[in-house]
Amino acid sequence: MTALEAAGERSGEKLREEMLALGRAAREAAATLARASAEQRTDALNRAAAAIRTARGAILEANRRDLQSAHDKQLSPAMTDRLMLDDQRIEAMANGLAEVASLPDPVGTVLAAWTRPNGLKIERVRVPLGVIGIIYESRPNVTADAGGLCIRSGNAAILRGGSESFHSSRAIVAAIETGLERAKLPRAAVQLVPTTDRAAVGHMLAMNDLIDVVVPRGGRSLIERVQTESRLPVIAHLEGVCHVYLDHAADPAKARKIVLNAKMRRTGVCGAAETLLVDRAVAAKLLPPILADLRGAGCEIRGDEAVRALDRDAKAATEQDWHTEYLDAILAVKVVDGLDAAIRHVNHYGSHHTDAIVTEEKAAAEKFLNEIDSAIVLVNASTQFADGGEFGMGAEIGISTGRLPPRGPVGAEQLTSFKYVVRGDGQVRP
Amino acid sequence: MTALEAAGERSGEKLREEMLALGRAAREAAATLARASAEQRTDALNRAAAAIRTARGAILEANRRDLQSAHDKQLSPAMTDRLMLDDQRIEAMANGLAEVASLPDPVGTVLAAWTRPNGLKIERVRVPLGVIGIIYESRPNVTADAGGLCIRSGNAAILRGGSESFHSSRAIVAAIETGLERAKLPRAAVQLVPTTDRAAVGHMLAMNDLIDVVVPRGGRSLIERVQTESRLPVIAHLEGVCHVYLDHAADPAKARKIVLNAKMRRTGVCGAAETLLVDRAVAAKLLPPILADLRGAGCEIRGDEAVRALDRDAKAATEQDWHTEYLDAILAVKVVDGLDAAIRHVNHYGSHHTDAIVTEEKAAAEKFLNEIDSAIVLVNASTQFADGGEFGMGAEIGISTGRLPPRGPVGAEQLTSFKYVVRGDGQVRP
Repeated sequence: MTALEAAGERSGEKLREEMLALGRAAREAAATLARASAEQRTDALNRAAAAIRTARGAILEANRRDLQSAHDKQLSPAMTDRLMLDDQRIEAMANGLAEVASLPDPVGTVLAAWTRPNGLKIERVRVPLGVIGIIYESRPNVTADAGGLCIRSGNAAILRGGSESFHSSRAIVAAIETGLERAKLPRAAVQLVPTTDRAAVGHMLAMNDLIDVVVPRGGRSLIERVQTESRLPVIAHLEGVCHVYLDHAADPAKARKIVLNAKMRRTGVCGAAETLLVDRAVAAKLLPPILADLRGAGCEIRGDEAVRALDRDAKAATEQDWHTEYLDAILAVKVVDGLDAAIRHVNHYGSHHTDAIVTEEKAAAEKFLNEIDSAIVLVNASTQFADGGEFGMGAEIGISTGRLPPRGPVGAEQLTSFKYVVRGDGQVRP
Repeated sequence: MTALEAAGERSGEKLREEMLALGRAAREAAATLARASAEQRTDALNRAAAAIRTARGAILEANRRDLQSAHDKQLSPAMTDRLMLDDQRIEAMANGLAEVASLPDPVGTVLAAWTRPNGLKIERVRVPLGVIGIIYESRPNVTADAGGLCIRSGNAAILRGGSESFHSSRAIVAAIETGLERAKLPRAAVQLVPTTDRAAVGHMLAMNDLIDVVVPRGGRSLIERVQTESRLPVIAHLEGVCHVYLDHAADPAKARKIVLNAKMRRTGVCGAAETLLVDRAVAAKLLPPILADLRGAGCEIRGDEAVRALDRDAKAATEQDWHTEYLDAILAVKVVDGLDAAIRHVNHYGSHHTDAIVTEEKAAAEKFLNEIDSAIVLVNASTQFADGGEFGMGAEIGISTGRLPPRGPVGAEQLTSFKYVVRGDGQVRP
């Protein structure tokens, strides 16, 4: 064994110990946070918002270090822009925390209550999940959002941000710690993994006694790594291959407005439409103005045979297109033989994220809403409403595409579990 | 490669294909079952109950084959008894299905509904989970219970029973299939893995596109294997290291009745108490009659120093005892310094299953209920109430000891998820 190998081994073991210490501190902080009052959690969030504003200079300074590394590593302009903080973005982070502070506190809510014939009074009561590990990529504001949602829901957070935003995240977490401390809550309620070493993620995923659930937030490869490696439950936000289906009874004006918005409002969000399906009976009438709108807005069209017969400029869609989340100004378009064919297509090629039908026929709408197996199904509205804020949840940590709860937008309330509280007067079981 | 190896490989590949075919059939059946009406699912359950009664002879005959193998393999009398069916147990199975038929159908329930300022109407609606894989051990009645709960909740079931009860389970599933068919629902809604080959479980755990959640029901080694190997979400029923804590303000009569029942009513159930904690202030007063009751009922006592000072016949408890789920007539007993020490002990040594406090002091009760981190917490009632039937759920597939929902008793309602249904009138996102 060389000296170098020995050093490596020690350092690997040291990292493991550091991560375990982080986990133990989180577990202890979680118990305190869960027992604290709603007012105390609200106080911590408001004080964290204030501390973010006060620390503006330090956060900008830390961000400059991250931007310098990004420049040195020749990161793409898009990545660099996501990373960049300015006064406005810092103010938005502080506002986000203040908004989360104003959300109803979910902990302790009685979800159901009933009395058994033997007199036992049973309640199902909302409780925090415990310790949440959040693994995310470049944007530093996720640090504030995720930390805030965890405090609101009484959970301790272990945050593992992208290495590109390490210094920014550290400055943001320092401000949140100040807020926690001023509200007399443990600083360890929100901790940042103190290294950019990728091995730290592996340690997190194996800490099944100290972390209760992992939330990966980022690209497909990150999420797949977490799903494959994790021995912990995962709340995964996989891709959004979202559809809009134009029914034979679609209102043409609504269809036009909804398709353009669903695709082009922002193309990089998970709720952006990626495939447009049209009933054959109305394709010739509906499609031409819609495709003209899209192309006018800079969107590329990839169509099947029937679409290309109507629109000579459309590229030919391949099988792969029906599976693809472009996150770009590209739309796959297909003519289908009615509602049943549309439902089959969406359930087969979609990602169970968000899908919409445009129709004036109630029966068609209800069939689509009922039979499409997605977290969010809409009638006569844009798929871009797939967002915790738009749902009235205040903030979200992502949109869960798994089938088990929490499904759909994950806000503070969705980061909770429940327990059964049973009050008796000496009852024993016969 | 020898001829034998080639045959083995083919057979391994053949099993994988068989399992995939099972999964695909389940996926298709799940979609049909989810869309069926509540009445149709109720009809299938009632017809399955009738078919179980009609098939009594065939089920007893199949059970005789299992009992013969059990005899040949020299299975323990306890195992053999669990396996054994008679007229009464078959009637109980049919009654169980009829009872599940009478439960409210959870599918389609609107859990929450609200309207956004932009006019979007949002509903959170209960939906089935999809395809549930259930892996269990010897008792054949689990086949009927699990199949019934899945039908009630609109899920397709893939059942992998213990090899000892293979023929019995096959005869029971045949009767359930008859019930499904008579209600015009797909037979594949409840399927039994058609082989006792252990490799089949491995295939199930890898079928993450075709199975949505796995429920292991059995001993610790089965559950740990499933948790380690599975790439699927797991609803795990781990052990129940359940506690009763006698507070300084405990009513002595209630304490005596509850401890005896919690430990000795049935010692082999997960809700049986395994550790008794007593406040030092009242130990000398409360313990002697309680320990006399227990010993009179045939229970062995393992105590700490303070307990042994009060009770010379008590064996010495070791550190391991505080961790142990005996499932037997043995109780670990410890004197603690008040409520906080009791809470620390339970949260440290317990398994987050079911724990009870006996006290007449409201503040102590509320502190215990609030701070004990278990699926079920009780005041002044026996831990043996930890049971879906006792909670009014009709039946249960187990008690989930995980922190994420579903937590606690898992009945039909707990085998569901939800989706968001959004109704608009042409809204687009600004």
